[in-house]
Amino acid sequence: MGLWLSKMKEAVPEGIRTPGELARFELSHALPGVPVTVEEDASQGDGYRIEPLTDGGLRLTGGSTGVLYGAYRAILDRFCGEELAAPVESTPKYALRMIDCWDNPDGSIERGYAGRSLFFHDGKLTPDPVRIRELGRLLASAGLNVLCINNVNVHFPAQLLLEDDLPSLAALAEMFRPFGVRLMLSVDFSQPMRSGIPTADPLDPAVRNWWKKTATRVWAAIPDLAGFLVKADSEGRPGPFTYGRNHAEGANMLAEAVAPFGGVIVWRCFVYNCRQDWRDTATDRPKAAWEHYAFLDGEFAENVILQVKHGPFDFQVREPLSPLLLGMKKTNLAMELQLAQEYTGHQIDLYTMIPMWKELYEELPADNIMSLAAVSNLGDDANYTGHPLAAVNLYTFGLLAWDPDIDPAAAVGRWVRLTYGLAPAEEQTLTELLLSSRRIYEKYTAPLGLGWMITPHDHYGPNPSGYEYDLWGTYHKANRNAVGIDRTAKGTDFLGQYPEELRKKYEDPETCPDLYLLFYHRLPYTFRMRDGRTLIQRIYDDHFEGLAETRTMAENLLALPFPEPDADVIRERMDRQLYNAREWCDIINTFFFRLSGIPDEKGRKIYD
Amino acid sequence: MGLWLSKMKEAVPEGIRTPGELARFELSHALPGVPVTVEEDASQGDGYRIEPLTDGGLRLTGGSTGVLYGAYRAILDRFCGEELAAPVESTPKYALRMIDCWDNPDGSIERGYAGRSLFFHDGKLTPDPVRIRELGRLLASAGLNVLCINNVNVHFPAQLLLEDDLPSLAALAEMFRPFGVRLMLSVDFSQPMRSGIPTADPLDPAVRNWWKKTATRVWAAIPDLAGFLVKADSEGRPGPFTYGRNHAEGANMLAEAVAPFGGVIVWRCFVYNCRQDWRDTATDRPKAAWEHYAFLDGEFAENVILQVKHGPFDFQVREPLSPLLLGMKKTNLAMELQLAQEYTGHQIDLYTMIPMWKELYEELPADNIMSLAAVSNLGDDANYTGHPLAAVNLYTFGLLAWDPDIDPAAAVGRWVRLTYGLAPAEEQTLTELLLSSRRIYEKYTAPLGLGWMITPHDHYGPNPSGYEYDLWGTYHKANRNAVGIDRTAKGTDFLGQYPEELRKKYEDPETCPDLYLLFYHRLPYTFRMRDGRTLIQRIYDDHFEGLAETRTMAENLLALPFPEPDADVIRERMDRQLYNAREWCDIINTFFFRLSGIPDEKGRKIYD
Repeated sequence: MGLWLSKMKEAVPEGIRTPGELARFELSHALPGVPVTVEEDASQGDGYRIEPLTDGGLRLTGGSTGVLYGAYRAILDRFCGEELAAPVESTPKYALRMIDCWDNPDGSIERGYAGRSLFFHDGKLTPDPVRIRELGRLLASAGLNVLCINNVNVHFPAQLLLEDDLPSLAALAEMFRPFGVRLMLSVDFSQPMRSGIPTADPLDPAVRNWWKKTATRVWAAIPDLAGFLVKADSEGRPGPFTYGRNHAEGANMLAEAVAPFGGVIVWRCFVYNCRQDWRDTATDRPKAAWEHYAFLDGEFAENVILQVKHGPFDFQVREPLSPLLLGMKKTNLAMELQLAQEYTGHQIDLYTMIPMWKELYEELPADNIMSLAAVSNLGDDANYTGHPLAAVNLYTFGLLAWDPDIDPAAAVGRWVRLTYGLAPAEEQTLTELLLSSRRIYEKYTAPLGLGWMITPHDHYGPNPSGYEYDLWGTYHKANRNAVGIDRTAKGTDFLGQYPEELRKKYEDPETCPDLYLLFYHRLPYTFRMRDGRTLIQRIYDDHFEGLAETRTMAENLLALPFPEPDADVIRERMDRQLYNAREWCDIINTFFFRLSGIPDEKGRKIYD
Repeated sequence: MGLWLSKMKEAVPEGIRTPGELARFELSHALPGVPVTVEEDASQGDGYRIEPLTDGGLRLTGGSTGVLYGAYRAILDRFCGEELAAPVESTPKYALRMIDCWDNPDGSIERGYAGRSLFFHDGKLTPDPVRIRELGRLLASAGLNVLCINNVNVHFPAQLLLEDDLPSLAALAEMFRPFGVRLMLSVDFSQPMRSGIPTADPLDPAVRNWWKKTATRVWAAIPDLAGFLVKADSEGRPGPFTYGRNHAEGANMLAEAVAPFGGVIVWRCFVYNCRQDWRDTATDRPKAAWEHYAFLDGEFAENVILQVKHGPFDFQVREPLSPLLLGMKKTNLAMELQLAQEYTGHQIDLYTMIPMWKELYEELPADNIMSLAAVSNLGDDANYTGHPLAAVNLYTFGLLAWDPDIDPAAAVGRWVRLTYGLAPAEEQTLTELLLSSRRIYEKYTAPLGLGWMITPHDHYGPNPSGYEYDLWGTYHKANRNAVGIDRTAKGTDFLGQYPEELRKKYEDPETCPDLYLLFYHRLPYTFRMRDGRTLIQRIYDDHFEGLAETRTMAENLLALPFPEPDADVIRERMDRQLYNAREWCDIINTFFFRLSGIPDEKGRKIYD
């Protein structure tokens, strides 16, 4: 087993049936010299307690899944060289710690950068049990417990998973069961129509009945299925709007069907007009989620969870916290993060996410949400995440979902230590490098909160006006004098969706935090920032710095003694990152220089 | 039979074997009341003579293909209501009047906008004989006599046409033979390597021998094969450069192999650096063809024809004549036109090409070239060209290749009369509308010779900076003050590739023809044109006019009584053209307004 479980040499064999059995197997093989007693107490759920004993052994108590999490905690602590001095107890902050795979039945992965699907091939669910057990171990050791295996864009034949292919789904659920990982399934809101029902109207009795019968059948096959994930009325997906119903009516209908079995409905809040006319300045896409959902606060059933992207756009390098996460106190919310590096370097460029996640929590009270979900960065590449260093995002996401108070440096440092046998100074170098990688990527790509200057559709590499006249509602409207959209009360008033404290923090460009300046404000290039620089000079500086820092990062990274095959992949991808960083730096600077005509104060080369 | 043969009701039956037989068949069915004597005289080749007889009959004499062209001339004249008063004689200006299909073995067509391939399905050459006979009739009635059936980008399994699939190719050649249409084949320069030869070096004896043996085998199967078409060292295609040989060495080697059989090698001159760094201002793509070929003038074998695109870029709406067509007096040249509306509206927008072609001939002495070739606009749509009005380009291309002195209005008018049974005033309306369509498309798309502001790769719809930072060498470098590339002696000196007379015509922006201004010059938006307008105002005016004229064109067009199903297609595509024209107009104007900050003098709406 590789990745952060590199020190675990013994594969999980077939035949283990429960997390408790697995905990015992893992402890006995990973810590062979350490006597450990394992006591299960179902009432503790995911929680565990580890007590050091005077004989050098450990007493592990916990819930039926808790003992497994405790076992990995004990094992990985030891692998890190940490000896337990006093008892530790731990329970996760969030009960549902979810990974959403965007895998299609044909084996492709939407926004996948680590190979093909681990689950699907040629239209069928045909996973390799050996890799599923490896994956289960990775997920469990990171504390993750729900896995949605198919794309939220449910295209045929994915519907068959609720029909003829249900036995395959049940078999997969069984493979994951010893790891404490429960499956979730993305479903097609219009699926009843495949059974001859002429409508998918959530208030139609035949539709309601179809879902109830379907849920009964599905949970009979998979009693611990976590629930259904739904992307409705979004980017062409069917949904309640077709029938004049709102999203509470749509979600609650499904919730009613799955409630008897303890299932949940995870309902994605990614609804906006993806056919916007670029000439239309009255519509401002970041406002869309709030407008579609906020008024429904309190209307959703108890087993509905609204899954809200962390920002109001779509996984840009820098977005403010989605206001919906602050404004729906009477609704179950999950925050959706994205491990897949869709806009953040395609698992070619280094981009460690935990510093970004922690920034979200600066404004998000942890109790506002009851779950964390993340779009998967997994695929069937031998290293699972394409770039070996991208695995840090999967692991630290698990730590964050368990405990959002986690320290980023500690989390990344732990991953480094577990993954590579480096000397302490090298560990320090790599940890710092990973922690810095997001800000570096941000510097050479997106200026001060301005996103979307990226190659359309593909989302890798610069194209400063690629989305500017398109239908996606993502405009910067840069002209010869100014750039950005005014989202204050004088503009689109997106900022009006926030509590007053945050509104105040961002509404005045004189006091707005720099890195959000062009998200909220339209400003002239000559705008004088608090540090005395002009806006345009700051853009140039950031881009030149981002490129220079990438070059330094490359030197530092490539001096580290990574083992093969990781070393090879790291080298090859760093070459591509260097090329990409130079393209971004030069193209964004040229773009703004052509517009503004203002030269770099430091006389660096900006191409005409 | 539809299209311009709409009045020919009798399909060509199986079993006709020669153009002479076909001529008799066509005359007897299309002009049943007219006694015609047909006399073949092989020495006349494609030429014919038609003499009106006092009994109301005709005497047709001509070469073995000439009698067929004469028969169509007589028939179509009658369909147009023209009675012959005196004898007419005609011979074509160019012996090879070629259509290049970019059909792939899988049935797709590169830059095809009229459905799938008429020749290939699922990797195999499996044409429908009924449609081939229709197509043969269309080509012959337009005077066209060479058809290259496969894409110049020869990807596997297209190579099999010279191997296992040769019998299918021979069968297709036989189908076309009665129509006087000879096949040509695009070949892969590296094909010998498929037979175990370790190189494709044109000076290697094994390679030379392989091509000789292959030619012997191929011409044994298809004795009248016209030759091979080659795209070498271009956009990733293999070629002589791989082996340190020049293109004369490459082409002559093939020419030697096919010479004994009367075959020709058509060698495309579309070589440029398609991996250009956008920062590199020393390289100017329009210069590439001249730099690669001009010095080889006189080096090519007698049966090599260099096929040169009409402009130095790639089929933009407006390009000057390629200097290569003026500078290789000791080389056989074919000018390549493009019927497929790649950059010119995808057979959605109306775009009648003959006015553009005639502009080329204003600077091109007709004798400089010995052949005309055009990239096909054909596909398996019922109407063959997707848009029924796009067929005018195929037909008038045939007329032009026969006689480049043809009058555009007469050519288009003849097509209109043959195709639709309209009243004279309606014919006049449609003819004028078609003749105006290219200038209208140009107005709402490309400003004053500036191309490439089009959606990358797809090439439909506006994207003013889509290619600006890409690898294709197609930059406008618009900034807040100026736009364009200086191609005079003070700039890249592309203009230096022309004879002095043309250099003088274009080198001074004060006297350069307006529509080429931004092809040759970099100019400030405030540049004062001869008519007193500023450059920026002229750009705005052209775009607003282009949109307004499209709307008028739509009204006029949709008022005409087209028959179904044409009427339906014309309506639907005109709706899309109206949308496209508005997008182009507004986006180009906004793009330049954002850069220049200069408002429209007439106060029309330009979006911010």
